Amino acid sequence: MPNRKTVELFFDIGSPYSYLAATQIEAVAAGTGARVRWRPFLLGAVFKATGNEMPARVAAKARWMLDDLARWAARYGVPFKMASRFPLNTLRTERALTAAARLNGEEAIGPFALTLFRGYWVEDKDVSSDEEIRAAAKAVGLDPDAVVAAIDSPEIKDALRATTDEAVRRGAFGAPTIFVGDAMFWGNDRLDLVEDELRRGD
Amino acid sequence: MPNRKTVELFFDIGSPYSYLAATQIEAVAAGTGARVRWRPFLLGAVFKATGNEMPARVAAKARWMLDDLARWAARYGVPFKMASRFPLNTLRTERALTAAARLNGEEAIGPFALTLFRGYWVEDKDVSSDEEIRAAAKAVGLDPDAVVAAIDSPEIKDALRATTDEAVRRGAFGAPTIFVGDAMFWGNDRLDLVEDELRRGD
Repeated sequence: MPNRKTVELFFDIGSPYSYLAATQIEAVAAGTGARVRWRPFLLGAVFKATGNEMPARVAAKARWMLDDLARWAARYGVPFKMASRFPLNTLRTERALTAAARLNGEEAIGPFALTLFRGYWVEDKDVSSDEEIRAAAKAVGLDPDAVVAAIDSPEIKDALRATTDEAVRRGAFGAPTIFVGDAMFWGNDRLDLVEDELRRGD
Repeated sequence: MPNRKTVELFFDIGSPYSYLAATQIEAVAAGTGARVRWRPFLLGAVFKATGNEMPARVAAKARWMLDDLARWAARYGVPFKMASRFPLNTLRTERALTAAARLNGEEAIGPFALTLFRGYWVEDKDVSSDEEIRAAAKAVGLDPDAVVAAIDSPEIKDALRATTDEAVRRGAFGAPTIFVGDAMFWGNDRLDLVEDELRRGD
Protein backbone atom coordinates (compact mmCIF):
# COMPACT_ATOMS: atom_id res chain seq x y z
CA MET A 1 0.00 0.00 0.00
CA PRO A 2 2.09 2.90 -1.25
CA ASN A 3 -0.39 5.56 -0.08
CA ARG A 4 -1.45 4.00 3.19
CA LYS A 5 -3.41 6.64 5.04
CA THR A 6 -2.91 7.57 8.66
CA VAL A 7 -5.64 8.47 11.11
CA GLU A 8 -4.45 10.34 14.19
CA LEU A 9 -6.47 10.01 17.39
CA PHE A 10 -5.82 12.77 19.93
CA PHE A 11 -7.29 11.54 23.19
CA ASP A 12 -7.40 11.99 26.94
CA ILE A 13 -8.13 9.01 29.19
CA GLY A 14 -10.42 11.25 31.26
CA SER A 15 -12.78 11.85 28.32
CA PRO A 16 -15.65 9.34 27.96
CA TYR A 17 -16.14 10.04 24.26
CA SER A 18 -12.39 9.48 23.78
CA TYR A 19 -12.90 6.05 25.34
CA LEU A 20 -15.75 5.24 22.96
CA ALA A 21 -13.75 6.34 19.92
CA ALA A 22 -10.70 4.43 21.16
CA THR A 23 -12.69 1.18 21.21
CA GLN A 24 -13.53 1.62 17.51
CA ILE A 25 -10.62 3.39 15.86
CA GLU A 26 -8.49 0.34 15.03
CA ALA A 27 -11.48 -1.33 13.33
CA VAL A 28 -12.24 1.83 11.35
CA ALA A 29 -8.61 2.01 10.23
CA ALA A 30 -8.36 -1.71 9.45
CA GLY A 31 -11.54 -1.59 7.37
CA THR A 32 -10.08 1.14 5.20
CA GLY A 33 -6.48 -0.04 5.05
CA ALA A 34 -5.28 2.87 7.18
CA ARG A 35 -3.06 2.89 10.26
CA VAL A 36 -3.71 4.62 13.59
CA ARG A 37 -1.40 7.04 15.35
CA TRP A 38 -2.41 7.23 19.01
CA ARG A 39 -1.72 10.76 20.23
CA PRO A 40 -2.14 11.29 23.99
CA PHE A 41 -2.79 14.95 24.85
CA LEU A 42 -4.07 16.92 27.82
CA LEU A 43 -7.67 17.97 27.33
CA GLY A 44 -7.62 20.42 30.24
CA ALA A 45 -4.83 22.35 28.52
CA VAL A 46 -6.77 22.35 25.24
CA PHE A 47 -9.81 23.83 27.02
CA LYS A 48 -7.60 26.48 28.59
CA ALA A 49 -5.94 27.39 25.29
CA THR A 50 -9.19 27.63 23.31
CA GLY A 51 -11.65 29.00 25.86
CA ASN A 52 -13.71 25.83 25.59
CA GLU A 53 -15.21 24.16 28.65
CA MET A 54 -16.21 20.67 29.77
CA PRO A 55 -19.55 19.68 28.21
CA ALA A 56 -20.67 18.50 31.65
CA ARG A 57 -20.51 22.12 32.87
CA VAL A 58 -24.14 22.48 31.73
CA ALA A 59 -26.21 20.38 34.17
CA ALA A 60 -28.85 19.39 31.60
CA LYS A 61 -26.14 18.31 29.19
CA ALA A 62 -24.38 16.30 31.90
CA ARG A 63 -27.64 14.45 32.63
CA TRP A 64 -28.23 13.69 28.96
CA MET A 65 -24.63 12.54 28.47
CA LEU A 66 -25.17 9.62 30.84
CA ASP A 67 -27.92 8.28 28.56
CA ASP A 68 -25.98 9.14 25.44
CA LEU A 69 -22.81 7.36 26.58
CA ALA A 70 -24.81 4.25 27.50
CA ARG A 71 -26.46 4.26 24.05
CA TRP A 72 -23.13 4.47 22.20
CA ALA A 73 -21.64 1.73 24.38
CA ALA A 74 -24.65 -0.49 23.60
CA ARG A 75 -24.36 0.29 19.89
CA TYR A 76 -20.68 -0.63 19.92
CA GLY A 77 -21.17 -3.59 22.25
CA VAL A 78 -18.55 -2.35 24.71
CA PRO A 79 -18.86 -2.04 28.49
CA PHE A 80 -19.20 1.41 30.05
CA LYS A 81 -19.67 2.59 33.59
CA MET A 82 -19.64 6.26 34.56
CA ALA A 83 -16.46 6.92 36.54
CA SER A 84 -17.06 7.85 40.17
CA ARG A 85 -13.94 10.07 40.03
CA PHE A 86 -14.94 12.52 37.30
CA PRO A 87 -13.44 14.75 36.17
CA LEU A 88 -10.05 13.24 36.81
CA ASN A 89 -6.75 15.10 36.64
CA THR A 90 -5.09 12.95 33.98
CA LEU A 91 -1.80 14.83 33.77
CA ARG A 92 0.24 11.88 35.06
CA THR A 93 -1.76 9.39 33.00
CA GLU A 94 -1.19 11.28 29.77
CA ARG A 95 2.49 11.67 30.61
CA ALA A 96 2.73 7.93 31.24
CA LEU A 97 1.25 7.31 27.77
CA THR A 98 3.76 9.73 26.31
CA ALA A 99 6.54 7.93 28.13
CA ALA A 100 5.45 4.57 26.71
CA ALA A 101 6.20 5.79 23.20
CA ARG A 102 9.67 6.93 24.22
CA LEU A 103 10.40 3.62 25.92
CA ASN A 104 8.91 1.08 23.51
CA GLY A 105 8.00 3.01 20.37
CA GLU A 106 4.76 4.63 19.32
CA GLU A 107 3.04 1.26 18.77
CA ALA A 108 3.13 0.78 22.55
CA ILE A 109 0.62 3.58 23.12
CA GLY A 110 -2.56 1.93 21.76
CA PRO A 111 -2.66 -1.16 23.99
CA PHE A 112 -1.57 0.88 27.03
CA ALA A 113 -4.29 3.47 26.33
CA LEU A 114 -7.00 0.83 25.91
CA THR A 115 -5.98 -0.71 29.25
CA LEU A 116 -6.11 2.66 31.01
CA PHE A 117 -9.42 3.55 29.33
CA ARG A 118 -10.90 0.26 30.52
CA GLY A 119 -9.52 0.87 34.02
CA TYR A 120 -11.24 4.25 34.21
CA TRP A 121 -14.44 3.80 32.15
CA VAL A 122 -15.25 0.18 32.96
CA GLU A 123 -13.51 -0.77 36.21
CA ASP A 124 -13.81 2.64 37.92
CA LYS A 125 -10.13 2.74 38.90
CA ASP A 126 -8.09 5.83 39.72
CA VAL A 127 -5.91 5.72 36.62
CA SER A 128 -4.05 8.84 37.69
CA SER A 129 -2.40 6.90 40.54
CA ASP A 130 1.07 5.42 40.19
CA GLU A 131 -0.36 2.10 41.33
CA GLU A 132 -2.84 1.84 38.46
CA ILE A 133 -0.41 3.26 35.93
CA ARG A 134 2.08 0.56 36.96
CA ALA A 135 -0.53 -2.20 36.77
CA ALA A 136 -1.65 -1.09 33.29
CA ALA A 137 1.96 -0.80 32.09
CA LYS A 138 2.74 -4.28 33.35
CA ALA A 139 -0.37 -5.73 31.70
CA VAL A 140 0.83 -4.62 28.26
CA GLY A 141 4.48 -5.55 28.67
CA LEU A 142 5.91 -2.15 29.54
CA ASP A 143 8.42 -1.73 32.37
CA PRO A 144 6.32 -0.20 35.17
CA ASP A 145 9.32 1.33 36.94
CA ALA A 146 10.62 2.95 33.80
CA VAL A 147 7.18 4.36 32.91
CA VAL A 148 6.58 5.86 36.35
CA ALA A 149 10.13 7.20 36.55
CA ALA A 150 9.69 8.90 33.17
CA ILE A 151 6.50 10.74 34.22
CA ASP A 152 8.46 13.42 36.03
CA SER A 153 11.24 13.79 33.47
CA PRO A 154 11.49 17.13 31.66
CA GLU A 155 11.67 15.30 28.33
CA ILE A 156 8.27 13.66 28.83
CA LYS A 157 6.67 16.82 30.24
CA ASP A 158 7.86 18.69 27.18
CA ALA A 159 6.72 15.96 24.80
CA LEU A 160 3.16 15.92 26.18
CA ARG A 161 3.05 19.71 26.07
CA ALA A 162 4.28 19.65 22.46
CA THR A 163 1.57 17.18 21.40
CA THR A 164 -1.11 19.26 23.10
CA ASP A 165 0.19 22.46 21.51
CA GLU A 166 0.30 20.77 18.12
CA ALA A 167 -3.35 19.72 18.43
CA VAL A 168 -4.43 23.25 19.34
CA ARG A 169 -2.35 24.71 16.53
CA ARG A 170 -4.06 22.33 14.09
CA GLY A 171 -7.50 23.41 15.33
CA ALA A 172 -8.47 21.09 18.19
CA PHE A 173 -10.75 22.36 20.96
CA GLY A 174 -12.03 19.11 22.51
CA ALA A 175 -11.59 15.35 22.64
CA PRO A 176 -11.39 13.06 20.90
CA THR A 177 -9.98 14.96 17.94
CA ILE A 178 -9.24 12.89 14.87
CA PHE A 179 -7.15 13.93 11.90
CA VAL A 180 -6.85 12.42 8.45
CA GLY A 181 -4.13 14.65 7.04
CA ASP A 182 -5.43 18.18 7.50
CA ALA A 183 -9.08 17.12 7.80
CA MET A 184 -10.12 17.43 11.43
CA PHE A 185 -13.02 15.62 13.07
CA TRP A 186 -14.24 16.26 16.60
CA GLY A 187 -15.99 13.58 18.55
CA ASN A 188 -16.74 9.88 18.70
CA ASP A 189 -19.88 10.72 16.73
CA ARG A 190 -17.80 11.64 13.68
CA LEU A 191 -16.29 8.19 13.11
CA ASP A 192 -18.57 7.61 10.09
CA LEU A 193 -17.28 10.82 8.55
CA VAL A 194 -13.71 9.75 9.35
CA GLU A 195 -14.38 6.49 7.54
CA ASP A 196 -15.74 8.41 4.52
CA GLU A 197 -12.56 10.48 4.51
CA LEU A 198 -10.33 7.41 4.73
CA ARG A 199 -12.17 5.77 1.82
CA ARG A 200 -11.85 8.83 -0.36
CA GLY A 201 -9.54 8.29 -3.33
CA ASP A 202 -5.98 9.60 -2.95
CA MET B 1 -50.48 0.62 13.05
CA PRO B 2 -51.91 0.54 16.58
CA ASN B 3 -48.66 1.55 18.24
CA ARG B 4 -47.41 4.06 15.73
CA LYS B 5 -44.51 5.87 17.36
CA THR B 6 -44.01 9.60 17.35
CA VAL B 7 -40.69 11.40 16.98
CA GLU B 8 -40.69 15.01 18.15
CA LEU B 9 -38.23 17.42 16.57
CA PHE B 10 -37.61 20.57 18.62
CA PHE B 11 -35.87 22.98 16.28
CA ASP B 12 -34.91 26.59 15.68
CA ILE B 13 -34.54 27.89 12.12
CA GLY B 14 -31.38 29.72 13.23
CA SER B 15 -29.58 26.47 14.09
CA PRO B 16 -27.60 24.84 11.25
CA TYR B 17 -27.71 21.38 12.80
CA SER B 18 -31.48 21.78 13.15
CA TYR B 19 -31.58 22.39 9.40
CA LEU B 20 -29.58 19.24 8.69
CA ALA B 21 -31.79 17.12 10.96
CA ALA B 22 -34.92 18.67 9.45
CA THR B 23 -33.88 17.52 5.98
CA GLN B 24 -33.72 13.90 7.21
CA ILE B 25 -36.33 13.49 9.93
CA GLU B 26 -39.30 12.59 7.70
CA ALA B 27 -37.26 9.86 6.00
CA VAL B 28 -36.11 8.48 9.35
CA ALA B 29 -39.73 8.41 10.54
CA ALA B 30 -41.07 6.94 7.31
CA GLY B 31 -38.46 4.20 7.35
CA THR B 32 -39.58 3.10 10.80
CA GLY B 33 -43.32 3.65 10.45
CA ALA B 34 -43.27 6.59 12.83
CA ARG B 35 -44.74 10.06 12.48
CA VAL B 36 -43.00 13.40 13.07
CA ARG B 37 -44.17 16.17 15.35
CA TRP B 38 -42.46 19.40 14.34
CA ARG B 39 -41.96 21.49 17.50
CA PRO B 40 -40.65 25.03 16.88
CA PHE B 41 -38.91 26.45 19.96
CA LEU B 42 -36.60 29.34 20.74
CA LEU B 43 -33.02 28.18 21.14
CA GLY B 44 -31.85 31.46 22.69
CA ALA B 45 -34.33 30.97 25.53
CA VAL B 46 -33.15 27.38 26.01
CA PHE B 47 -29.56 28.60 26.31
CA LYS B 48 -30.62 31.21 28.85
CA ALA B 49 -32.63 28.71 30.91
CA THR B 50 -29.90 26.07 31.01
CA GLY B 51 -26.71 28.12 31.13
CA ASN B 52 -25.64 26.65 27.81
CA GLU B 53 -24.02 28.79 25.10
CA MET B 54 -23.77 28.84 21.32
CA PRO B 55 -21.19 26.30 20.14
CA ALA B 56 -19.73 28.98 17.88
CA ARG B 57 -18.70 30.96 20.99
CA VAL B 58 -15.41 29.02 20.89
CA ALA B 59 -13.51 30.33 17.86
CA ALA B 60 -11.79 27.02 17.08
CA LYS B 61 -15.12 25.22 17.24
CA ALA B 62 -16.76 27.79 14.98
CA ARG B 63 -14.00 27.24 12.40
CA TRP B 64 -14.38 23.47 12.55
CA MET B 65 -18.18 23.68 12.31
CA LEU B 66 -17.95 25.15 8.82
CA ASP B 67 -16.17 22.00 7.62
CA ASP B 68 -18.42 19.76 9.67
CA LEU B 69 -21.63 21.27 8.31
CA ALA B 70 -20.36 20.95 4.74
CA ARG B 71 -19.50 17.29 5.35
CA TRP B 72 -22.97 16.45 6.70
CA ALA B 73 -24.64 18.29 3.85
CA ALA B 74 -22.54 16.30 1.36
CA ARG B 75 -23.35 13.05 3.16
CA TYR B 76 -27.07 13.83 3.01
CA GLY B 77 -26.90 15.26 -0.50
CA VAL B 78 -28.54 18.53 0.53
CA PRO B 79 -27.42 22.07 -0.26
CA PHE B 80 -25.89 24.19 2.52
CA LYS B 81 -24.44 27.67 2.58
CA MET B 82 -23.31 29.36 5.77
CA ALA B 83 -25.73 32.19 6.49
CA SER B 84 -24.21 35.68 6.25
CA ARG B 85 -26.60 36.82 9.01
CA PHE B 86 -25.56 34.51 11.84
CA PRO B 87 -26.62 34.31 14.57
CA LEU B 88 -30.11 35.47 13.65
CA ASN B 89 -32.79 36.57 16.11
CA THR B 90 -35.43 34.04 15.15
CA LEU B 91 -38.11 35.08 17.65
CA ARG B 92 -40.55 36.20 14.94
CA THR B 93 -39.70 33.22 12.73
CA GLU B 94 -40.39 30.72 15.50
CA ARG B 95 -43.59 32.55 16.37
CA ALA B 96 -44.68 32.39 12.73
CA LEU B 97 -44.13 28.62 12.79
CA THR B 98 -46.17 28.41 15.97
CA ALA B 99 -48.91 30.47 14.34
CA ALA B 100 -49.03 28.11 11.34
CA ALA B 101 -50.13 25.26 13.59
CA ARG B 102 -52.90 27.37 15.10
CA LEU B 103 -54.11 28.46 11.69
CA ASN B 104 -53.82 25.27 9.63
CA GLY B 105 -53.11 22.46 12.08
CA GLU B 106 -49.84 20.98 13.27
CA GLU B 107 -49.20 19.30 9.90
CA ALA B 108 -48.65 22.77 8.44
CA ILE B 109 -45.43 23.25 10.41
CA GLY B 110 -43.15 20.80 8.59
CA PRO B 111 -43.40 22.22 5.05
CA PHE B 112 -43.27 25.79 6.38
CA ALA B 113 -40.19 24.99 8.44
CA LEU B 114 -38.39 23.34 5.52
CA THR B 115 -39.10 26.41 3.38
CA LEU B 116 -37.74 28.76 6.05
CA PHE B 117 -34.70 26.50 6.67
CA ARG B 118 -33.92 26.56 2.97
CA GLY B 119 -34.37 30.32 2.89
CA TYR B 120 -31.84 30.78 5.66
CA TRP B 121 -29.34 27.91 5.14
CA VAL B 122 -29.35 27.70 1.35
CA GLU B 123 -30.60 31.00 -0.07
CA ASP B 124 -29.09 33.26 2.61
CA LYS B 125 -32.31 35.17 3.20
CA ASP B 126 -33.29 37.11 6.29
CA VAL B 127 -36.02 34.76 7.44
CA SER B 128 -36.73 36.90 10.49
CA SER B 129 -38.21 39.58 8.23
CA ASP B 130 -41.94 39.85 7.62
CA GLU B 131 -41.23 39.84 3.90
CA GLU B 132 -39.54 36.44 3.93
CA ILE B 133 -42.00 35.01 6.43
CA ARG B 134 -44.82 36.05 4.13
CA ALA B 135 -43.12 34.58 1.07
CA ALA B 136 -42.47 31.26 2.81
CA ALA B 137 -46.04 31.12 4.14
CA LYS B 138 -47.43 31.76 0.70
CA ALA B 139 -45.20 29.09 -0.86
CA VAL B 140 -46.73 26.41 1.36
CA GLY B 141 -50.33 27.53 1.09
CA LEU B 142 -50.62 29.45 4.35
CA ASP B 143 -52.32 32.84 4.49
CA PRO B 144 -49.37 35.29 4.74
CA ASP B 145 -51.46 38.06 6.33
CA ALA B 146 -52.90 35.77 8.96
CA VAL B 147 -49.45 34.36 9.82
CA VAL B 148 -47.81 37.77 10.18
CA ALA B 149 -50.78 39.15 12.12
CA ALA B 150 -50.60 36.21 14.54
CA ILE B 151 -46.91 36.77 15.33
CA ASP B 152 -47.71 39.56 17.77
CA SER B 153 -50.74 37.97 19.38
CA PRO B 154 -50.48 37.03 23.06
CA GLU B 155 -51.76 33.55 22.30
CA ILE B 156 -48.88 32.80 19.90
CA LYS B 157 -46.28 34.40 22.17
CA ASP B 158 -47.53 32.21 25.01
CA ALA B 159 -47.65 29.10 22.84
CA LEU B 160 -44.02 29.45 21.73
CA ARG B 161 -42.96 30.13 25.30
CA ALA B 162 -44.85 27.04 26.46
CA THR B 163 -43.16 24.82 23.88
CA THR B 164 -39.74 26.18 24.84
CA ASP B 165 -40.46 25.70 28.54
CA GLU B 166 -41.69 22.18 27.89
CA ALA B 167 -38.45 21.30 26.06
CA VAL B 168 -36.34 22.64 28.91
CA ARG B 169 -38.47 20.83 31.49
CA ARG B 170 -37.97 17.59 29.57
CA GLY B 171 -34.19 18.08 29.55
CA ALA B 172 -33.30 20.03 26.40
CA PHE B 173 -30.26 22.31 26.38
CA GLY B 174 -29.59 22.76 22.65
CA ALA B 175 -30.94 22.17 19.14
CA PRO B 176 -32.09 20.10 17.51
CA THR B 177 -33.52 18.08 20.38
CA ILE B 178 -35.37 14.94 19.42
CA PHE B 179 -37.67 12.91 21.62
CA VAL B 180 -39.06 9.43 21.19
CA GLY B 181 -41.31 9.27 24.21
CA ASP B 182 -39.07 10.14 27.15
CA ALA B 183 -35.86 9.23 25.35
CA MET B 184 -34.06 12.44 24.43
CA PHE B 185 -31.45 12.87 21.72
CA TRP B 186 -29.43 16.00 21.12
CA GLY B 187 -28.07 16.80 17.71
CA ASN B 188 -28.31 15.97 14.04
CA ASP B 189 -25.50 13.48 14.72
CA ARG B 190 -27.85 11.35 16.84
CA LEU B 191 -30.28 10.44 14.04
CA ASP B 192 -28.88 6.90 13.85
CA LEU B 193 -29.59 6.47 17.56
CA VAL B 194 -33.08 7.93 17.05
CA GLU B 195 -33.65 5.35 14.34
CA ASP B 196 -32.49 2.57 16.67
CA GLU B 197 -34.94 3.84 19.28
CA LEU B 198 -37.81 3.95 16.77
CA ARG B 199 -37.08 0.38 15.65
CA ARG B 200 -37.03 -0.96 19.18
CA GLY B 201 -39.94 -3.30 19.96
CA ASP B 202 -42.86 -1.68 21.73
